[in-house]
Amino acid sequence: MAGGKAPVLTPRSEDFPRWYQDVLNKAELADNGPVRGTMVIRPYAYALWERMVAEVDTRIKAAGAENAYFPLFIPESYLQREAEHVEGFSPELAIVTVGGGKELEEPVVVRPTSETVIGEFMAKWIQSYRDLPLLLNQWANVVRWELRPRVFLRTSEFLWQEGHTAHATEADARDYAEFILRSVYRDFMVEVLAIPVLVGAKIAEERFAGATNTLTCEAMMGDGKALQMGTSHELGQNFARAFDMSYLDEHGAQQMCWTTSWGVSTRMMGGLIMAHGDDAGLRVPPRLAATQAVVLVVRDDDGSVTPAAAELASSLERAGVRVRLDDRVSTGFGRRATEWELKGVPVRVEVGPRDLADGQVVVARRDDGTKVTQPLGGTPEAVVALLDDVQAAMLVSATEARDVRTVDVDSVDDALEAARTGFARLPWRLVDAPAIQRMGSSAVTVRCLQTVDGDLPGTTPADELVAVCARSY
Amino acid sequence: MAGGKAPVLTPRSEDFPRWYQDVLNKAELADNGPVRGTMVIRPYAYALWERMVAEVDTRIKAAGAENAYFPLFIPESYLQREAEHVEGFSPELAIVTVGGGKELEEPVVVRPTSETVIGEFMAKWIQSYRDLPLLLNQWANVVRWELRPRVFLRTSEFLWQEGHTAHATEADARDYAEFILRSVYRDFMVEVLAIPVLVGAKIAEERFAGATNTLTCEAMMGDGKALQMGTSHELGQNFARAFDMSYLDEHGAQQMCWTTSWGVSTRMMGGLIMAHGDDAGLRVPPRLAATQAVVLVVRDDDGSVTPAAAELASSLERAGVRVRLDDRVSTGFGRRATEWELKGVPVRVEVGPRDLADGQVVVARRDDGTKVTQPLGGTPEAVVALLDDVQAAMLVSATEARDVRTVDVDSVDDALEAARTGFARLPWRLVDAPAIQRMGSSAVTVRCLQTVDGDLPGTTPADELVAVCARSY
Repeated sequence: MAGGKAPVLTPRSEDFPRWYQDVLNKAELADNGPVRGTMVIRPYAYALWERMVAEVDTRIKAAGAENAYFPLFIPESYLQREAEHVEGFSPELAIVTVGGGKELEEPVVVRPTSETVIGEFMAKWIQSYRDLPLLLNQWANVVRWELRPRVFLRTSEFLWQEGHTAHATEADARDYAEFILRSVYRDFMVEVLAIPVLVGAKIAEERFAGATNTLTCEAMMGDGKALQMGTSHELGQNFARAFDMSYLDEHGAQQMCWTTSWGVSTRMMGGLIMAHGDDAGLRVPPRLAATQAVVLVVRDDDGSVTPAAAELASSLERAGVRVRLDDRVSTGFGRRATEWELKGVPVRVEVGPRDLADGQVVVARRDDGTKVTQPLGGTPEAVVALLDDVQAAMLVSATEARDVRTVDVDSVDDALEAARTGFARLPWRLVDAPAIQRMGSSAVTVRCLQTVDGDLPGTTPADELVAVCARSY
Repeated sequence: MAGGKAPVLTPRSEDFPRWYQDVLNKAELADNGPVRGTMVIRPYAYALWERMVAEVDTRIKAAGAENAYFPLFIPESYLQREAEHVEGFSPELAIVTVGGGKELEEPVVVRPTSETVIGEFMAKWIQSYRDLPLLLNQWANVVRWELRPRVFLRTSEFLWQEGHTAHATEADARDYAEFILRSVYRDFMVEVLAIPVLVGAKIAEERFAGATNTLTCEAMMGDGKALQMGTSHELGQNFARAFDMSYLDEHGAQQMCWTTSWGVSTRMMGGLIMAHGDDAGLRVPPRLAATQAVVLVVRDDDGSVTPAAAELASSLERAGVRVRLDDRVSTGFGRRATEWELKGVPVRVEVGPRDLADGQVVVARRDDGTKVTQPLGGTPEAVVALLDDVQAAMLVSATEARDVRTVDVDSVDDALEAARTGFARLPWRLVDAPAIQRMGSSAVTVRCLQTVDGDLPGTTPADELVAVCARSY
């Protein structure tokens, strides 16, 4: 690199997985935990997760669900009550066999998900049709033993929310599962994360263990691979039967409930990094950002710059901007600017002695790297407007990046070719069992089935659906 | 109960533990989980916990600590690095021996607390004095196997926050531990929970396993027993040495850190119930309440009352009141009023057809049971003012209840007598080892040592301190 600066990160084009790992380390986002597959979420990344939680939680509450908390430990026997469920989760379980210094009589499972234990209590709480729908959610950690862990994407422990609802009819359950996918998950991902997710239904082989239908939000990452960002399941009467979730209807007849479950997790942190990151680091969309703007003191030789920068930071805060002041002048400006770039703070306001003497500051946007000089007085209003621009621009640019790598094809061959760099949209009627197997041997899967217009399948006949095929995380 | 109504709850004076259990059930707060010692936190109680989290989290952030997340699973070997720590926690551990279908080579412990795993990472992150203080916090579940579980008070799994900080000097660590106890915990408990906690230091025998000093907030429950509501520990250099948390000081010399840890948990839910509850149920202080006021439609024969009540609820919401509308007129008014009483909602606004015709509503306060008739127009302002009154009155009444059962004594005999109904304040110089043992055989312990004025001991000479003695949960 004669004469040049060594890049802080491995370039994405050179080695995408290593770039991802570099971002995690250099932006101080997360570390591997000491027990294989676990992770440590560092403060900067955790603040982003807290913002995700707040935004998703608001939408979940608006959807009428109430938060509750169920135990981490589940009797092993509970999982066995639903045949597909236990078959799906058994290979991933962590099992506690010793408690309080003694071998346990019945080993307990560390929850991989909570359909079973929540089903047990819903059955107690639901008596009559008046108790329905019962709409619950919990924010919790879950454990699924991972053989090939990767921080945020596949970890043995992760944080998530899991919604669990019981309804009187199949149609009610279906409507609610669809509502969550569209109005909670997609809305959050598009409007806040600025990630233009596709929605669709999983094919039978890819469904949640115990579900009759799994709806999904799928995002395209910077390397053209797909990431499943969130799912919403119709569980039919599988868990209702297993846990006897029944109710007396208006006519006094005993009926079985219909249930759903749905979740998003810290995996979205991985999606955020890989959908928006560039060779300089993370790029955080303003609506998500815990720090939307950083006011940087460039240099302060006579002690007059820091107070002015602090005053500007206060006025930004009063204007509703989540702002941070960086007055660590004992560290070089370039190094600090690189740090905030790495961390993807959407807007940097650089306050230096010369600009200040001229009554101005430099405002830099992280998404496209442009810088403008801005009169000091109007800075708060300018930054507020700029944050909106950045939010919109990031969604546009992510949508363009996705669309340019999405190809309509009409053969499995062409789908495989297109899936090398992005998404292939293939008529579902062309995908038979051998085709799925053939794609599988190239690590390509059907990410979801959707209508030609990109909506959930609903009642659309199968032979009119499109299969979105891609490599995936 | 000829002619009378059977009480909904066991009276407190008759059987306090059973009253507590009745409140948990009837107010739909919590259930026992299927695995012994675990609990299910139901939506109404979880909403209170969310409010506790929000209020405590705001204070923790104001104290400069940042949230992060560390793994649930800790290698068994980590705990063994600090001798007192492993000795203290070993009998309470839940141990995972099987993961992903295989016996694990090294069993992993489900965290009972996170000093060890956080110590390991702090040691990596701290290099120089510039990295200090390092102030971290996490909201998490922890597991301590309980032989005599009681919901919220002693559960095998509970939710809490655990703060972990590293400092350059012993004085810095001490100051921070005291700041957390006073300005985060006591402030929250007094100002929001309306529980007049005592502060003090634990005697050596009652310290956290691995601490050099444990500070505590102790509250008096409705039966005169004490509940430890939160603790803040100076850990000296015990964990710093065990995990090699050292730093380069200004002069380039290697120094060992001084650390603290501090936590409050869902145990506070038990404290809330037992400090404020009465024979009609829970009483929630307004600043904590997730629902501060409920607008109850008494009856609605012509369909005109519900819209008026809904309009009133909206105007209360606009006035900043966390309000709920109860328009379930198919259920009798008395039954619903009892339900909200049980749940301890601070203010009930009862809207009935006759009052409405007269342009008025009935406003009932939960804390003292009084009801007033209120012109409809001024209701939002009146409720806002009333909520402040209720908050203040609840603190006054809890303080009076505590003070009337707190006795200054000057012998162990008198302390034992006083501790039958409340707290005894006994000069610490009178408490020798045999005295502690004698008290112990009556289930009385030294809850904390404090100055005569009720402050933390600080540098006060030991023979001027007061030992607060009581039975406890």
